Amino acid sequence: MKKHNFSAGPCILPQSVFEQASQAVLNFNNSGLSILEISHRSKDFVAVMDEAQKLAIELLGLEGKGYKALFLQGGASTQFLMAAYNLLEKKAAYLNTGTWSSKAIKEAKLFGEVEEVASSKDKNFNYIPKNYSVPADADYFHCTSNNTIFGTQIKDFPTTGGIPMVCDMSSDIFSRKLDFSKFSIIYAGAQKNMGPAGTTLVVVKEDILGKISREIPSMLDYQTHIGKDSMFNTPPVFAVYTSMLTLRWLKEKGGVEGIQKLNEEKAALIYNEIDRNPLFEGFAAVEDRSMMNATFNLKDEKYKDLFEDLAKAAHINGINGHRSVGGYRASMYNALPLKSVQTLVNVMKELETQA
Amino acid sequence: MKKHNFSAGPCILPQSVFEQASQAVLNFNNSGLSILEISHRSKDFVAVMDEAQKLAIELLGLEGKGYKALFLQGGASTQFLMAAYNLLEKKAAYLNTGTWSSKAIKEAKLFGEVEEVASSKDKNFNYIPKNYSVPADADYFHCTSNNTIFGTQIKDFPTTGGIPMVCDMSSDIFSRKLDFSKFSIIYAGAQKNMGPAGTTLVVVKEDILGKISREIPSMLDYQTHIGKDSMFNTPPVFAVYTSMLTLRWLKEKGGVEGIQKLNEEKAALIYNEIDRNPLFEGFAAVEDRSMMNATFNLKDEKYKDLFEDLAKAAHINGINGHRSVGGYRASMYNALPLKSVQTLVNVMKELETQA
Repeated sequence: MKKHNFSAGPCILPQSVFEQASQAVLNFNNSGLSILEISHRSKDFVAVMDEAQKLAIELLGLEGKGYKALFLQGGASTQFLMAAYNLLEKKAAYLNTGTWSSKAIKEAKLFGEVEEVASSKDKNFNYIPKNYSVPADADYFHCTSNNTIFGTQIKDFPTTGGIPMVCDMSSDIFSRKLDFSKFSIIYAGAQKNMGPAGTTLVVVKEDILGKISREIPSMLDYQTHIGKDSMFNTPPVFAVYTSMLTLRWLKEKGGVEGIQKLNEEKAALIYNEIDRNPLFEGFAAVEDRSMMNATFNLKDEKYKDLFEDLAKAAHINGINGHRSVGGYRASMYNALPLKSVQTLVNVMKELETQA
Repeated sequence: MKKHNFSAGPCILPQSVFEQASQAVLNFNNSGLSILEISHRSKDFVAVMDEAQKLAIELLGLEGKGYKALFLQGGASTQFLMAAYNLLEKKAAYLNTGTWSSKAIKEAKLFGEVEEVASSKDKNFNYIPKNYSVPADADYFHCTSNNTIFGTQIKDFPTTGGIPMVCDMSSDIFSRKLDFSKFSIIYAGAQKNMGPAGTTLVVVKEDILGKISREIPSMLDYQTHIGKDSMFNTPPVFAVYTSMLTLRWLKEKGGVEGIQKLNEEKAALIYNEIDRNPLFEGFAAVEDRSMMNATFNLKDEKYKDLFEDLAKAAHINGINGHRSVGGYRASMYNALPLKSVQTLVNVMKELETQA
């Protein structure tokens, strides 16, 4: 019995991807070898890396616009320091919308001055600040597009007046259409909408690099990886392969526009129930609600055990909220079927009946 | 038909590991979830990480000796800079035995003075320098235990007189018994004897840390990862799981001592044939020959096509030498069966007959 997997990440991927990845561990491309035992320099794997990079650029609508897609290691946490290492000469501007923004700010401070242009810390990050301005003398502006823990998401990105925009899109990349050419660097740990944990997509506009006086260690220098097509050192072969399979699946689903429709449907279903059901209340400000992670609480804790028992009986997995927020979080990444959200909504209705 | 896989890395792993890993991609621990979609904070995965760390320490004979095993990302290439970032205050001593040592030296120079205590570059790294001394004022001494490209291996490690020894054991970790407590840091990309590409084992003696004045970004600080049991950020779940399976397999095979016997048998078989067969010659100095990677050449290039055709017909994969050396390289990591080496030796004998 497959579960309805609302895990915040690593999270559900398409079932067809699990099946293909499982088969490749036994016999990759009918080569008689496992994907785990082939050289990353082999023709077959070079083709995988190439396709993964091309699909990422294509799905973001960035073909011919001077961008390069890299598949690196170390997660967004490594990008927190790499972005600053490569771009921060004097001052950077950061928008603070939660735990991950705060961590990015902490790392950047090791490399220069950081101006926090706005923060929603005053209300435990339950909203996205608006009406801030990005200082004209900043080397770059950094923001987090979706806040997994708090369930908020930036709907309108600021106009930066030519200041390069760097965005951590770990938890909503490939989930909705945006003008991605507004960003100079987009980075995302794979383990939400793209693949298994173990690789990080970094999409870099090449012309923003090489402007810093600092010496950069090879592995931390975006130019190293661009020059070697993400093959400067041994890449995480299986994670890249599985990401490529997931990006292929996304393309078949109509790409970012196609999946956005499904994501909107799923989000409407759960938020409508949160707002309708007298036993629940949402955590995030309504206008800033995330399409990926719906955070909500029981108004009365006395229904906790009953709700969780009903959810478990319905084979629902991974809806406990993060400790900073409490309550519940339904993560509805690209691969989560509508019927999983419907199942959760039915449990919420059932609770109302039984309560 | 399975191939005889002599790939230099990523390389062959035990067939039973491929089967278990493939199954876990469909249904991990009979949970109804793929290993790729579970939270790294789930009880089941925390148990995997814990077992992997314990097995690494146990198999190296380092229990109760103040060491911590970490499973990180970024490969040995990231360790080149992390070792220096964490330990190099003024001066470090490096032994240069090939491509990977040279790369480690390049990165360390960004952080302080590097004294190259000896190098075998004069003979294209076909031997291991001896009779050098480690300066008493070095912060640490760094060496590469096995040189995959050149097929050399350090048999006797120097006495460092209390200077911490840091060793890149990427290509021979867990292959032979050593007094591992002589080392303060051992690091190794997983993709030879330990697992798939995508995780890096770092074994750190905790008391050598915290002695540096430099500020270290969180992800590059060994203390960050020690404090969080390799879970500071999302670890590469599948690579760690598959490494754990491989370490379990190694323990069942009698651990490092058990596998060493098999590795010695395989190495004797191929080197005896290289020395006996009048068509071939070895590349590395005899006393420094690697038990993992045998490098050899045809004395007369005119037999190249015939040799490679015979090898292909025998389902032999991955014996082309690295471009810096040319010729052939038979990588015989832990999981390579004796019969694969016997098959290659038979092909070498057959070439002699047909030539």
